[in-house]
Amino acid sequence: MYEGVVLAERYFQHTFGNGLTLLAERMPGMQSAAMTFLVNAGAATDPVDRCGSATVLSDLLLRGAGTRDSRQLTDYLDSLGLQRSSSVGIHHMRFGSAAVAAKVIEALPTYSDIVRRPHLPQDGFEAARDLALQALEGIDDEPRQKLMIKLREWYFPSPYGRNTMGRAEDLEKLTLELCKADWQQRFHAKDAIIALAGDVDFGQLREEIERHFGAWNGEAPGDVNVMPPPGRFHHEHQKSEQTHIGIAYPSIPETHADYYTVRLAIEVLSGGMSGRLFTEVREKRGLCYSVWAGYSSLKGSGSIFGYAGTSNERAQATLDCFIAELHRLQSGVTDAELQRAKIGLKASTIMQGESTSARAGAIAHDYFIRGRIRTLEEVKDAIDAVTVEKVNSYLKVTAPGPFTIVTVGPKELKLPD
Amino acid sequence: MYEGVVLAERYFQHTFGNGLTLLAERMPGMQSAAMTFLVNAGAATDPVDRCGSATVLSDLLLRGAGTRDSRQLTDYLDSLGLQRSSSVGIHHMRFGSAAVAAKVIEALPTYSDIVRRPHLPQDGFEAARDLALQALEGIDDEPRQKLMIKLREWYFPSPYGRNTMGRAEDLEKLTLELCKADWQQRFHAKDAIIALAGDVDFGQLREEIERHFGAWNGEAPGDVNVMPPPGRFHHEHQKSEQTHIGIAYPSIPETHADYYTVRLAIEVLSGGMSGRLFTEVREKRGLCYSVWAGYSSLKGSGSIFGYAGTSNERAQATLDCFIAELHRLQSGVTDAELQRAKIGLKASTIMQGESTSARAGAIAHDYFIRGRIRTLEEVKDAIDAVTVEKVNSYLKVTAPGPFTIVTVGPKELKLPD
Repeated sequence: MYEGVVLAERYFQHTFGNGLTLLAERMPGMQSAAMTFLVNAGAATDPVDRCGSATVLSDLLLRGAGTRDSRQLTDYLDSLGLQRSSSVGIHHMRFGSAAVAAKVIEALPTYSDIVRRPHLPQDGFEAARDLALQALEGIDDEPRQKLMIKLREWYFPSPYGRNTMGRAEDLEKLTLELCKADWQQRFHAKDAIIALAGDVDFGQLREEIERHFGAWNGEAPGDVNVMPPPGRFHHEHQKSEQTHIGIAYPSIPETHADYYTVRLAIEVLSGGMSGRLFTEVREKRGLCYSVWAGYSSLKGSGSIFGYAGTSNERAQATLDCFIAELHRLQSGVTDAELQRAKIGLKASTIMQGESTSARAGAIAHDYFIRGRIRTLEEVKDAIDAVTVEKVNSYLKVTAPGPFTIVTVGPKELKLPD
Repeated sequence: MYEGVVLAERYFQHTFGNGLTLLAERMPGMQSAAMTFLVNAGAATDPVDRCGSATVLSDLLLRGAGTRDSRQLTDYLDSLGLQRSSSVGIHHMRFGSAAVAAKVIEALPTYSDIVRRPHLPQDGFEAARDLALQALEGIDDEPRQKLMIKLREWYFPSPYGRNTMGRAEDLEKLTLELCKADWQQRFHAKDAIIALAGDVDFGQLREEIERHFGAWNGEAPGDVNVMPPPGRFHHEHQKSEQTHIGIAYPSIPETHADYYTVRLAIEVLSGGMSGRLFTEVREKRGLCYSVWAGYSSLKGSGSIFGYAGTSNERAQATLDCFIAELHRLQSGVTDAELQRAKIGLKASTIMQGESTSARAGAIAHDYFIRGRIRTLEEVKDAIDAVTVEKVNSYLKVTAPGPFTIVTVGPKELKLPD
């Protein structure tokens, strides 16, 4: 299907004078469209003593904007049938919507109101801050989520390892005035990305974005103080039935020529149900009920993250087995393993090509990381080009590590040397 | 898009002589296909003293079948690029797969092996049972999941309220021999459903299913002893930061003429972000970080389920507010609320129409509940036919309740009269 379409007819990319980039993908046969809107206001850009400002803003911005108060805004967006989301990542604040294509377009001026003309009301601020504090408290009831938060904190240099939900002591000191100042400082057109995929018309989109976002101006201050993480090993005591184990170590960035070599090696480790971790740790030894590893990307850096959830008495054996499997990668993968990994990765690329939401997210991510959209063909070709020789010579010279290891549970584990 | 396709060209339904039903939906423009395969072997059909037999079988069946041992089977299915799932529901054991269409078809004989010619090896049995026991223990670390399990147990008559993960004391007594006998008794063609959606050819599908499942025979014993639940109110003590609240009460079945009247009323309560629960409980009062209500279906019965997760000190106010909103429905909904609810429900129907996995699941569910596939047009028309008069006269005479209320947290709450 993709082969039959001239690339220029499927993809569209344009950066306006104010630094905002519009990306679009036409998906024949779809009635829907999806939007991913990224603003350069993620948790890493929170002021150093106001961690959680982004998460409060992501709620507060929706409590009235432009000519609509909070209730009118919510009612209006629902009356378009939009499936909406908003979230805070490390780099970006993200707004997502999906619906019948015409309605997603119709909502664009309202998203302009949300980022450029929010009301930021006092009562809304208090409710938003309370909810953020409650969500933060709730993490103690979710040891798996807690593990992943702690792992990021101990692995990434600050502020890239921040908990995107914020910090309780900072949230308590936050005021509406500080939030307003923060909104003014961070919400600007420069480096913002609006990506749409589905039944869209490039000309109309460009006009609409120009009309509603063209006069959005300014640039967010960009310097961030980077500090090393507190250490590489951490145990978080929790009276729980399970021990949760998190492992992270550095890899190459997505823009590196060997990116798919690494992706496919990790797919051999953890793709499908024939992945080594699943079969060795789970299927053969029954050590744990959940185990995986995956590649994870920040701008300019790549990492491998791994997780295992297991009963307390099997935790040590699970950690040992996990680390052994990571080291065993150095001895290489078989041709059959690589073939399965390639087929699996290509199949999920094809499936992604049938979802407007997945494609809107993918082209936005591509542009942020690489400065351009990749076609599905390009992804497929890059996967096909990886050979077992390439993978094995890469793995041979690339010892996994140094490991950051975080555990949550009732007992500390013995760490590998 | 749907209007342009003759219905007969989009949908296909055939019941073979052995009682197995094949359902299919052709989705123009898709390269992928998805399969939902339902066998009449859910948790409600577990022998009364062997709760969890289904969950162990759902793992064990995949540990070797036909000519392939456990490893070969996993490797083979992954080499087709299948995204796979298997799960145990109350009525059914479910196998799901999705991939490039030709590969989903290619895997059909293997799914025949899995249900008809599994190896059921001893070592695989032990690993599967251990994993089932570990998963069960893990629930203590997941108070939200625990709440939903307990709510079903206290709301539904047994065996329909069973925890599909099984019961620890039964799992501990389970043997491979008992599992084998159970497989023999429950895995039969009668009432099984295979549903495929995507880039499929009806003629080819029918031939393939006939060839590989045509000789599958027998009928599962159907009588189930129904027992009332233990009571309507239950508090599960847990030292947690949050209190989790679950509410359930009876509604009409999906086959009832007023089904969409109810669905839309609940959509007014909990659809989108303008839903009453979200705005009243969460947005206005900041009472809790998660709240929803939804319609839930078993064969022949319908129910409303509600959930709220909140800090311990706000739990009582949240429960009171939730119950008040349920009662307030009796005073009716506004025309604007109903219009938003209709648009929201139609939009999600359209989005579902663009996902092969969602459509395979939907036609299988339709057939199980109604004995036939509904077209997307039929669903849309049924939603359109609901008027505000219809909704309000239904709500006026239908007091919500009797409520079953389950809470998980450190403190019991005062229940409504």
